[in-house]
Amino acid sequence: MKLALLFLIFTVFSLSTIASTYEHPLDPLTPSEFNLVRTIVLKAYKASPPKLTFQYIGLDEPDKSIVLSWLLSSKPNNKSTKLPRRRAFVIARFNKQSHEIIVDLSKRSVVSSKVHSGHGFPMLTFDEQDVAAELPLSYKPFIDSVNKRGLNISQVVCSTFSVGWYGETKSKPTQKIQCFYTEGSVNLYVRPVEGITIVVDLDERKVVEYSDRFKIPVPKAEGTEYRASKQKPPFGPTLNGAAFVQPNGPGFKINGHSISWANWEFHLGYDVRAGSMISVASIFDIQQQRYRRVLYRGYISEFFVPYMDPTADWFFKTYLDSGEFGFGQSIVSLVPSADCPTNAAFFDAHYGGEDGKPVKITNAICVFEKYAGDIMWRHTESEIPNEEITEVRPDVSLVVRTVSTVGNYDYIIDWEFKPSGSIKLGVGLSGILGIKGTPYTHVNQIKEDVFGTLLAENTIGVHHDHYLTYYLDLDIDGEDNSFVKTNLETVKITYESSPRKSYWTVVHETAKTEADARIKLGLKPSELAVINPNKETKPGNKLGYRLFPGTVAHPLLLSDDYPQIRGAFTNYNVFVTPYNKSEKWAGGLYADQGRGDDTLMVWSLRNRSIENKDIVLWHTVGIHHVPCQEDFPIMPTLNAGFELRPTNFFETNPVLKTTQPKPVRMPKCTSQP
Amino acid sequence: MKLALLFLIFTVFSLSTIASTYEHPLDPLTPSEFNLVRTIVLKAYKASPPKLTFQYIGLDEPDKSIVLSWLLSSKPNNKSTKLPRRRAFVIARFNKQSHEIIVDLSKRSVVSSKVHSGHGFPMLTFDEQDVAAELPLSYKPFIDSVNKRGLNISQVVCSTFSVGWYGETKSKPTQKIQCFYTEGSVNLYVRPVEGITIVVDLDERKVVEYSDRFKIPVPKAEGTEYRASKQKPPFGPTLNGAAFVQPNGPGFKINGHSISWANWEFHLGYDVRAGSMISVASIFDIQQQRYRRVLYRGYISEFFVPYMDPTADWFFKTYLDSGEFGFGQSIVSLVPSADCPTNAAFFDAHYGGEDGKPVKITNAICVFEKYAGDIMWRHTESEIPNEEITEVRPDVSLVVRTVSTVGNYDYIIDWEFKPSGSIKLGVGLSGILGIKGTPYTHVNQIKEDVFGTLLAENTIGVHHDHYLTYYLDLDIDGEDNSFVKTNLETVKITYESSPRKSYWTVVHETAKTEADARIKLGLKPSELAVINPNKETKPGNKLGYRLFPGTVAHPLLLSDDYPQIRGAFTNYNVFVTPYNKSEKWAGGLYADQGRGDDTLMVWSLRNRSIENKDIVLWHTVGIHHVPCQEDFPIMPTLNAGFELRPTNFFETNPVLKTTQPKPVRMPKCTSQP
Repeated sequence: MKLALLFLIFTVFSLSTIASTYEHPLDPLTPSEFNLVRTIVLKAYKASPPKLTFQYIGLDEPDKSIVLSWLLSSKPNNKSTKLPRRRAFVIARFNKQSHEIIVDLSKRSVVSSKVHSGHGFPMLTFDEQDVAAELPLSYKPFIDSVNKRGLNISQVVCSTFSVGWYGETKSKPTQKIQCFYTEGSVNLYVRPVEGITIVVDLDERKVVEYSDRFKIPVPKAEGTEYRASKQKPPFGPTLNGAAFVQPNGPGFKINGHSISWANWEFHLGYDVRAGSMISVASIFDIQQQRYRRVLYRGYISEFFVPYMDPTADWFFKTYLDSGEFGFGQSIVSLVPSADCPTNAAFFDAHYGGEDGKPVKITNAICVFEKYAGDIMWRHTESEIPNEEITEVRPDVSLVVRTVSTVGNYDYIIDWEFKPSGSIKLGVGLSGILGIKGTPYTHVNQIKEDVFGTLLAENTIGVHHDHYLTYYLDLDIDGEDNSFVKTNLETVKITYESSPRKSYWTVVHETAKTEADARIKLGLKPSELAVINPNKETKPGNKLGYRLFPGTVAHPLLLSDDYPQIRGAFTNYNVFVTPYNKSEKWAGGLYADQGRGDDTLMVWSLRNRSIENKDIVLWHTVGIHHVPCQEDFPIMPTLNAGFELRPTNFFETNPVLKTTQPKPVRMPKCTSQP
Repeated sequence: MKLALLFLIFTVFSLSTIASTYEHPLDPLTPSEFNLVRTIVLKAYKASPPKLTFQYIGLDEPDKSIVLSWLLSSKPNNKSTKLPRRRAFVIARFNKQSHEIIVDLSKRSVVSSKVHSGHGFPMLTFDEQDVAAELPLSYKPFIDSVNKRGLNISQVVCSTFSVGWYGETKSKPTQKIQCFYTEGSVNLYVRPVEGITIVVDLDERKVVEYSDRFKIPVPKAEGTEYRASKQKPPFGPTLNGAAFVQPNGPGFKINGHSISWANWEFHLGYDVRAGSMISVASIFDIQQQRYRRVLYRGYISEFFVPYMDPTADWFFKTYLDSGEFGFGQSIVSLVPSADCPTNAAFFDAHYGGEDGKPVKITNAICVFEKYAGDIMWRHTESEIPNEEITEVRPDVSLVVRTVSTVGNYDYIIDWEFKPSGSIKLGVGLSGILGIKGTPYTHVNQIKEDVFGTLLAENTIGVHHDHYLTYYLDLDIDGEDNSFVKTNLETVKITYESSPRKSYWTVVHETAKTEADARIKLGLKPSELAVINPNKETKPGNKLGYRLFPGTVAHPLLLSDDYPQIRGAFTNYNVFVTPYNKSEKWAGGLYADQGRGDDTLMVWSLRNRSIENKDIVLWHTVGIHHVPCQEDFPIMPTLNAGFELRPTNFFETNPVLKTTQPKPVRMPKCTSQP
């Protein structure tokens, strides 16, 4: 028995999401549901791929009120609670138009459909990008360009790049193609073939624009490989092996997509555009002996990555990684014991491919208990005579991790739940820099702005930004919430009775409308919280959760510059909007070549009332990235993030009476295997 | 053999610092050296304690050039290299004066001594504080005050508080005493006996001022206990047990006070005022096959904690936790498997007590490998046809931890070394809030500024700040360094050839003098680095280390307010000074009742040249703390910190060719013990 337990914990266990049916109204669509959606849509449109392409298939969420009442009525493991109707939202490209289709899965029919008449194009599929990226390789002028450079066409790999919007009045679904040289190294992104502009029409699936403007050396392969198998000595540094032992197995329970751990329970979803989605997160209050709601739904809504090179080959590189490329589609399979520790559990995910058929991502999400050696709380008391008291509680947290690789960059996305009620949102940046070829080999030769750092011979790491915008529909012990700024203000003492001349105090300011809640962080000292104005603690404080910002950046592009119009949702680090089911994507539903007319910034300008309402907090983590040589040829992870922390949500420290595990005693071992 | 190894790693191993002799010029004084210093000084002064009291005894560091040349000439384990002369620096209180004494330990004599003639008093000893805190308990007026309140004097515990400086022209070494009630709970700090002012003269060791001004209820004991043994059900949340297994033992090597791990080596010292000190930290460069210098010496120089209540009982609470109370003296014994994980090694520390005799702190410092489940770097490449590449390197780091408990607060101080060259400096705040008694029981009753949050009945958590100022003598591959601001500036595009209207680029600005390097962070986008202007990488970038600020706060007190004059070293988040052996303590050598005439701010105003010189970077981590109910009765750890990260220090990613451990295979186990 004990032996069996021990064995269990060293087995990487994979929990498939393939279920014959869904169990929670927010469960992502199952493979069979994707197939059903596909059948219904193709039948309704009397079409087959690639005449009709599925650009997005996702759950059409039931109304929040329906989900909440289902939650209230459903008892754990009570399958009899009737689930709300199940619908899918589809964006399909058909006859050179974008169609928005709602499919009812129980009725097996299209409920509604309309043609998108506004600007912008839907998320790009992998298939259309693959087709586009292959086109140059059989395109005569490109083959000539490659030959002219003395390169071997069989070693050229091309990739697709979204084109942005620069004031054009007419847009077609196009992609730019940039090609790379892979002879001698798989690190293609650091070896661009510069000077060639290729534009592909995605509807026509052909090259529509081509120019070869100049020739510069392709950066050499030497020193660019990152595969262990290709490295030559000397090796190092050498790290030491370790493993976790959890004699009682993991501390979390997984029931379909619902996860419970310590005092937390939440639903772990997935969407092809957003990636992982955390829903209905609640924390058990031991004083009240009930779960209390914290977060209705949270996910990364958009991810803006503008590069800072205005020249012909680079100016358009101002990506919306979520809206253009699909942050969920870009999720890669996690490597057990490397991407996640040995004690992790894994989830697969499924999305609908361009042909509507389900595509499986194995080990798309991992969940693990993090034992980082942190201290939950402690105190040593030595003031009391003849008594020395030390109380320490070591901390453990639960991490939900995905990695989205969007071309060159790898984004490690963590949701970390702490028993103290804190939720830490982490993003780690790794992968390969966006590299530009250059004739320069030494900084001394450079007399102009090269828009980046010379990292190696012929290799510029181009300046850029990363802005991740989180959607955080906090429900602090109920839906109706307010956003409160607690401003720290200096008080000048004018009376004689105090030897002090000053102190600071707090002035609470409740945001009435959206304008009050657009905030550039760092300009003045202020604590930001979402509170429930209808509920208070025993001493009378309003229940709240506070935003502890971490890495913050303010955009440096002019606000009327085209990329910044599209990325205007980063103009402020914080927005608060009234909950609106249709306002999900900060960069707009049709982000590719969008014109910024459907962004969070635009919605916010309606200046709606947000006081004592169901509200959504939007927070943008920002990083200005000046590359350095350490980022080359592959980047050590750079961490950023923020924290949501209870503030007068609990009457007292919620982990005061935590039950700590007994020290783990090791089994008697006779040998190593 | 394998069994023995396994056994070893589950044994908490304690490495005593007691050595008959020192092995490194920066080794802290040994117990026998403290005894020797004591003997020499008492003999020279013909005095014995408490007529002469030792307020500070520490290593009088050899000149930096001497240490560096010793390092160069010393080979590992070569004990024959002659160590520089060994000296101690002593501040003693004798005849109501502060004496600065330098003792030569080899010559066994006092080398120099002088009487301090400026403002301020030396660090307080535990003994004098203990004596002072006992005085009220036998002081008739205080006993009357206690009786008048209906309290039991045997349950009253008093504590000492530094008095600050508020423009007095004459100062005596005094402390204020505040008392607390411990009936029913050991959490004394949350149960202050308010309304009584007690001033003690430390030289006279008697009460010199007493007033009992008002009576308010002592907050009740209920709900304030934090000891597990005193908690009543319901308990929770329940956490899961885990242990580390390191079949090959720890990855670090300890040789006296020198630690080597992965690609790092450094000296781990200790000082009664500073706490842990990291010196001569170097990182092995696998390309150059040599250790390269990063940090000559780093430690917490001062810790300013001003409270924001200007009333009679509280206005003076503006502590300098390092200069007044000794951040090293305040280090507490770490609890194995709780304060530090099971795989930690522990060091004892010794300081000289008031009588000069060595005092031992058992398990004062721990060192452990942190396996937090982080990713060192990764990439998944799927653009290359018929090839799917995923390379991931899990991260491990080395943590050096101490906990200093200064009265109510517990400060967890981490130095984290990463194989990528990054050094993360973490501070965790836990322990008990500074609590003020109040007649209020509900927020509704409060019509005035109460200078804090009502946390429970009669309990105000008073607003305050924490400013930790780090001394960071970076030596980037050599002593002569410069401080460079890389400013990110928007460029407006006026030419027609780009569809963009703007981008940002970088403008490097080398600080010429100290004024150029006084920085309030967050006001403009800028990357700050210490670089070596005399050395460059192959592409020609200057070698550097960058400061990644984390938690930053700007003081809100008026700059001419007394506490802020003493705490003026927090006026800027960053200072750079030329290296000066005498400039160690940002708040002044005599911080207690100091008048701000010997602070980092004052030194910086000399506006010395700092370009291409041996320079010191000073960085202040700041937190404005508005208490919340979760912080009561004991505070879940709040984390802050910053990171030093190589920037063009290495030619490429220094962990590209890291040697990862083989997966740990579990031993064959037959049973649990």
